[in-house]
Amino acid sequence: MRRFIGVDEIEDMALGATVLGAGGGGDPYVGKLMAIEAIRKYGDVELITPDEVPDDAVVVVSQMMGAPTIMVEKICSGLEPMATYDEMVKELGVEPYAIYAVEAGGVNSTIPFILGATRRIPVVDCDLMGRAFPELQMTTLGINGVKGQPAVLADEKGNTVTVRAIDDRWLERIARQATSVMGGYTILASYMCTGRQLKDFAIPGTPTLCEKIGRTLREAREMHADPIAAVLEVTRGHRLFKGKVVDVERNTDGMFVRGRAVVAGLDDDKGRELVIEFQNENIIARADGRALCTSPDLIMSLDMESGTPVTTEGLKYGARIVVVGMPCDDQWRTPEGLAVVGPRAFGYDLDYVPVEELAATEGGR
Amino acid sequence: MRRFIGVDEIEDMALGATVLGAGGGGDPYVGKLMAIEAIRKYGDVELITPDEVPDDAVVVVSQMMGAPTIMVEKICSGLEPMATYDEMVKELGVEPYAIYAVEAGGVNSTIPFILGATRRIPVVDCDLMGRAFPELQMTTLGINGVKGQPAVLADEKGNTVTVRAIDDRWLERIARQATSVMGGYTILASYMCTGRQLKDFAIPGTPTLCEKIGRTLREAREMHADPIAAVLEVTRGHRLFKGKVVDVERNTDGMFVRGRAVVAGLDDDKGRELVIEFQNENIIARADGRALCTSPDLIMSLDMESGTPVTTEGLKYGARIVVVGMPCDDQWRTPEGLAVVGPRAFGYDLDYVPVEELAATEGGR
Repeated sequence: MRRFIGVDEIEDMALGATVLGAGGGGDPYVGKLMAIEAIRKYGDVELITPDEVPDDAVVVVSQMMGAPTIMVEKICSGLEPMATYDEMVKELGVEPYAIYAVEAGGVNSTIPFILGATRRIPVVDCDLMGRAFPELQMTTLGINGVKGQPAVLADEKGNTVTVRAIDDRWLERIARQATSVMGGYTILASYMCTGRQLKDFAIPGTPTLCEKIGRTLREAREMHADPIAAVLEVTRGHRLFKGKVVDVERNTDGMFVRGRAVVAGLDDDKGRELVIEFQNENIIARADGRALCTSPDLIMSLDMESGTPVTTEGLKYGARIVVVGMPCDDQWRTPEGLAVVGPRAFGYDLDYVPVEELAATEGGR
Repeated sequence: MRRFIGVDEIEDMALGATVLGAGGGGDPYVGKLMAIEAIRKYGDVELITPDEVPDDAVVVVSQMMGAPTIMVEKICSGLEPMATYDEMVKELGVEPYAIYAVEAGGVNSTIPFILGATRRIPVVDCDLMGRAFPELQMTTLGINGVKGQPAVLADEKGNTVTVRAIDDRWLERIARQATSVMGGYTILASYMCTGRQLKDFAIPGTPTLCEKIGRTLREAREMHADPIAAVLEVTRGHRLFKGKVVDVERNTDGMFVRGRAVVAGLDDDKGRELVIEFQNENIIARADGRALCTSPDLIMSLDMESGTPVTTEGLKYGARIVVVGMPCDDQWRTPEGLAVVGPRAFGYDLDYVPVEELAATEGGR
């Protein structure tokens, strides 16, 4: 049965994607409005499964790169996804069969639908992370040896840049610098791959899971049920900590939003202190000198009452949150995956331990 | 009569271009060797006049961008001019009729001949500065409203980047950042324009003038004549100062080589002190609290004995030099030209006074 994504689905998807964004991936507000605007104007977007993409067809990502804090204040012109797509078509010499999302996250889950609606191209129900990560080489294509380039970047002024890099780390370096000088964030067409590669290496179903998380959260609120319990059930997540944000350090260096939040425990966690460190996404959560959850597992702050996900740029003094940990996709738990997104890849001298094991040691809190 | 540039002409041209490089444009050694290698392998390169380019034909520049100090230590792979040319052809959809140089300067005067020899494409006898300047928007095309983009950048590792900017200042910003992260310098294909625009706005004859200056200098040395007097005659230049370099501050920030040299006077200038400030190129020369020469006029250090031009990266303690000032092309002396390359464009609170007027006030020293 053909499935179409309309305004209601985008609302749920953007909310759920912000949960899987693990603190990053951007505030859903701007991206959601852009996708809704495009869908209202051009119609619903077909969501196809990876299996529906022919093996030799080409698919590309439409995404945002840079500091989400900047995108909230300096919004898009709205033309960037199409500008990058057109340059990508010129670069490849073929029209892509479909668009897909690089990651789950407030902005990057909805951007493909702007392009999909405007250009009447289907979106594939998959992504390359099953969550959000801060750097371009951090994809399931990358750990399987498929390069994420060429990439085309566009800013809101009309500048475009095409990067053909020798590997994904060089793509990350060059595109990050260009993004910085182009104003802190850019919209990209990227991660060209074949249908075969998508079936072999992408994480299927992430957009649908985002929608399901968003719908679950919305319905729990409507029925006055516990929204956090509902989120934990659908994400197989663990309640890590409950508390009040008492300090936030946030530093935008033009490339990433880096910083830490200190959360003072409430109720069962009274007297304890949790520290979350982030680089766009939440990377590590520690209390009492030990890690409760680390990348690549997902760390997410949810508003204590409404269950609304709070991204790193939305964290502020006084926010009462429940911090949850969710297991990542199994591809990230391999040596190849951990080499790129494990704690050491972010500079922490820590071995990765799955969140469910850490939670069991913690005593099933 | 058809004219060809071979190894001997390249030798003279590289030497003379370093004089017109005004301290910048790169050390001639590496660029010259690369051009000679290509000419030995593929044959001499035809040098045509701007008048020989059909009005509607397309021409492009082959050039180096970045800090010349880095290029001396981390040399090219040798493939960059061809890699950027091929991407430019793909970008434009047409084969250029000819190649030309963006500026006079040790490296940038010879790079077009690498591509010309390798691909059997003529080089046009013109440039866009009549000297060297440090930033991409500083061209006679630019002050006449012709944009220097698209531009394709390549590094020695094999990364390429295509920049399509809304104006030359954005081109400069984006390409400069990309160049910085790609390793401090890149080779570019750039300044696509038509034969008509070249005839209207380029400075004709600069490569031939470079060759003439180099030949004059070489012959003066061979005949034990005064090489500096010979250079001054052919460039309509002025002797500004004679002395010994007693201090050099040089700072490579990954984008430009900025700094200053202090020269203690000798002979007629004994007891005086000259300060040269540079940003890749020499921008201003001052003594006794007044300017002796400022951009866009050319300031050049020549070895006191041999007349060999000393670029800013070659300046060192103890060097005995004669500092000369040469009038720039008249296009730079217009309000449009001075807005882009006058002293104020480089941050100096000074009005431009032509070097010949300053020299007359100085008493014809």
